[in-house]
Amino acid sequence: MSTVALVEESAASGEVAAIYADIRATFGLPFVPAMFKAIAHHPAYLKASWERVKVVMGPGLIDRKTKEMIAVAVSAANGCDYCIQAHTAALKGMGSNDAEIVELMAVVDLFSGFNKMLDGLQVAPDIGATHRPA
Amino acid sequence: MSTVALVEESAASGEVAAIYADIRATFGLPFVPAMFKAIAHHPAYLKASWERVKVVMGPGLIDRKTKEMIAVAVSAANGCDYCIQAHTAALKGMGSNDAEIVELMAVVDLFSGFNKMLDGLQVAPDIGATHRPA
Amino acid sequence: MSTVALVEESAASGEVAAIYADIRATFGLPFVPAMFKAIAHHPAYLKASWERVKVVMGPGLIDRKTKEMIAVAVSAANGCDYCIQAHTAALKGMGSNDAEIVELMAVVDLFSGFNKMLDGLQVAPDIGATHRPA
Amino acid sequence: MSTVALVEESAASGEVAAIYADIRATFGLPFVPAMFKAIAHHPAYLKASWERVKVVMGPGLIDRKTKEMIAVAVSAANGCDYCIQAHTAALKGMGSNDAEIVELMAVVDLFSGFNKMLDGLQVAPDIGATHRPA
Amino acid sequence: MSTVALVEESAASGEVAAIYADIRATFGLPFVPAMFKAIAHHPAYLKASWERVKVVMGPGLIDRKTKEMIAVAVSAANGCDYCIQAHTAALKGMGSNDAEIVELMAVVDLFSGFNKMLDGLQVAPDIGATHRPA
Amino acid sequence: MSTVALVEESAASGEVAAIYADIRATFGLPFVPAMFKAIAHHPAYLKASWERVKVVMGPGLIDRKTKEMIAVAVSAANGCDYCIQAHTAALKGMGSNDAEIVELMAVVDLFSGFNKMLDGLQVAPDIGATHRPA
Repeated sequence: MSTVALVEESAASGEVAAIYADIRATFGLPFVPAMFKAIAHHPAYLKASWERVKVVMGPGLIDRKTKEMIAVAVSAANGCDYCIQAHTAALKGMGSNDAEIVELMAVVDLFSGFNKMLDGLQVAPDIGATHRPA
Repeated sequence: MSTVALVEESAASGEVAAIYADIRATFGLPFVPAMFKAIAHHPAYLKASWERVKVVMGPGLIDRKTKEMIAVAVSAANGCDYCIQAHTAALKGMGSNDAEIVELMAVVDLFSGFNKMLDGLQVAPDIGATHRPA
Repeated sequence: MSTVALVEESAASGEVAAIYADIRATFGLPFVPAMFKAIAHHPAYLKASWERVKVVMGPGLIDRKTKEMIAVAVSAANGCDYCIQAHTAALKGMGSNDAEIVELMAVVDLFSGFNKMLDGLQVAPDIGATHRPA
Repeated sequence: MSTVALVEESAASGEVAAIYADIRATFGLPFVPAMFKAIAHHPAYLKASWERVKVVMGPGLIDRKTKEMIAVAVSAANGCDYCIQAHTAALKGMGSNDAEIVELMAVVDLFSGFNKMLDGLQVAPDIGATHRPA
Repeated sequence: MSTVALVEESAASGEVAAIYADIRATFGLPFVPAMFKAIAHHPAYLKASWERVKVVMGPGLIDRKTKEMIAVAVSAANGCDYCIQAHTAALKGMGSNDAEIVELMAVVDLFSGFNKMLDGLQVAPDIGATHRPA
Repeated sequence: MSTVALVEESAASGEVAAIYADIRATFGLPFVPAMFKAIAHHPAYLKASWERVKVVMGPGLIDRKTKEMIAVAVSAANGCDYCIQAHTAALKGMGSNDAEIVELMAVVDLFSGFNKMLDGLQVAPDIGATHRPA
């Protein structure tokens, strides 16, 4: 159970209600994710965060599905169950199957292991590396 | 300086020399990255790790450039300078410019922040979430 | 379930029982937190840790409520449910409401995101920075 | 050296130049911190992030100096040299001396240790905990 | 519940079935751990990972029980419940009692705390350190 | 450079000087490690921490060299250069060669990778696991 009460949709008004409506419309969801209902106790932070979500996850040089993969990979590296589940569901909604999700996690495994081992051996970056793996 | 000596190419023989040659050929690099020269003190581990690199980063359901982005994102989340530099260089070799690299890091920023905040508020995953962000 | 048995109060004797009594008295709690009952298998470590808790959380230059905020923020960054729940409860006991707890987590979110992004871009500290944000 | 070029003040125009001016004015700084110059390759992300900095670090229920302490504590837990140095400098600008900074780090030390140990022993949160340490 | 279906033993064939059999035989287990059943959607990664497990955890300069202790310590530092539980069970199977497991976690606690505090104070390594603690 | 001044041996008096002498004697070192000189601004914390170092690293069920290996492994997982270098030096002083240090890091690599991958796939612990790897 969250350490703060969720601000339910029925209790939201004014700016918070407007953001909730935008979240539902933007995501095409029948509910507002709990994350937003938890931070609605601080409306200005909710608003600034939601604006930033739209900027960061919106159209740009990197396509949306790749951004979702990065979201899941980063959330795995940081160990956040909420984000892992929400964004794996998003990936599945975009057509990812179990094999693709495991292939994604294989990359997370490979580099998380190397990251810690290289720190542990204090290996300095290659000078002038133009490392172009396989 | 690394805490172990690097096994330089001139000192490598047998299986280690063969792996070094495969690394250079596979990556099209004029040198063997320091990472591999550090772990060559344990040839069986070097070999098993290199085999796994080829499997994980090789052809599959996810394209190579996306895998490199995930490598950089995970290495940023885990804080490994060596891997960040090596794989950002790889991305640049595949055509990424500074704007694309910042866009990638914007996703890392967004989710690393949310990851810790959601843990900190102990928000439980949405039941039956079919979260399809923007 | 913890991987070790908890040393219950009824089973404690000697030095462990004395520490348990001091913990209950110091915290004004009707029970000994599970954390201490788990580490009581190593009495000298229990004792040295409890002594350090009193020194670190006791009177000093930083007030107690601020220390509890830092405890929750650090535990969120490190992802420890036990500490997040225990010290959020402590904050509420000191008068924090949901809005204050979300404001605290907003700071955790902001910096956790920036921390990983700045590592990921390998940005060097500003020389002679006298960075005085807003 | 950062993996992307910094967008120097002399090269900034339009919205980026306006944000740079706001950063300098808000912080009372004679320069724009490198962090912002690194992410200026993605102006919309720069803008949304800067807006969020002002909301999160601005007036609220938690005073500014406490927020700076949390910033340093979180950055220590996440291991970001840039943020540690920038916000320790901010704390010193607000009057913190070396003893106060060490007292802050003592709290980070205490809980980072307990966080990992409690995870490692899989200790479940106390039911109905109203944990009010010392 | 895992985000991917587990490839149950009854559904495994060919190479996956052979690896499952090797895992059961090598570990002397009456079942295949869920970890392997989750990644079996990517047989080449399963195979390369299993080969690496045998190399890394097999005979070498460090004895098996010490490797299991390191596995638990690293998994505690990284916060992985699955690995903590699996490898604490392995340690118990090798004779570790609760006191030994707490002693192990005391080392994890001590250094995890110092790690973050030293980062937070930006203390540089001692030059020419031949640090030989107690 | 550390964010706080180091309290040099020539400037230490009273309790701090006594602890410095005990550190030098206990470690058989010709200098006091910088870590202790950084935290000496808070003498009670220095004292409580040093007492705890002696308890945790002193004689017990786990031998000293194994504890040093765990110290290096945990410090690698947490990414602390200071501790990695200090305790790798300690291991070398106890006879570890480069092959042994790489073998240690191979275990760190293996589990750090698996830790994040298992979190990322949300694999639940095996019920009644008596996982006894190879």
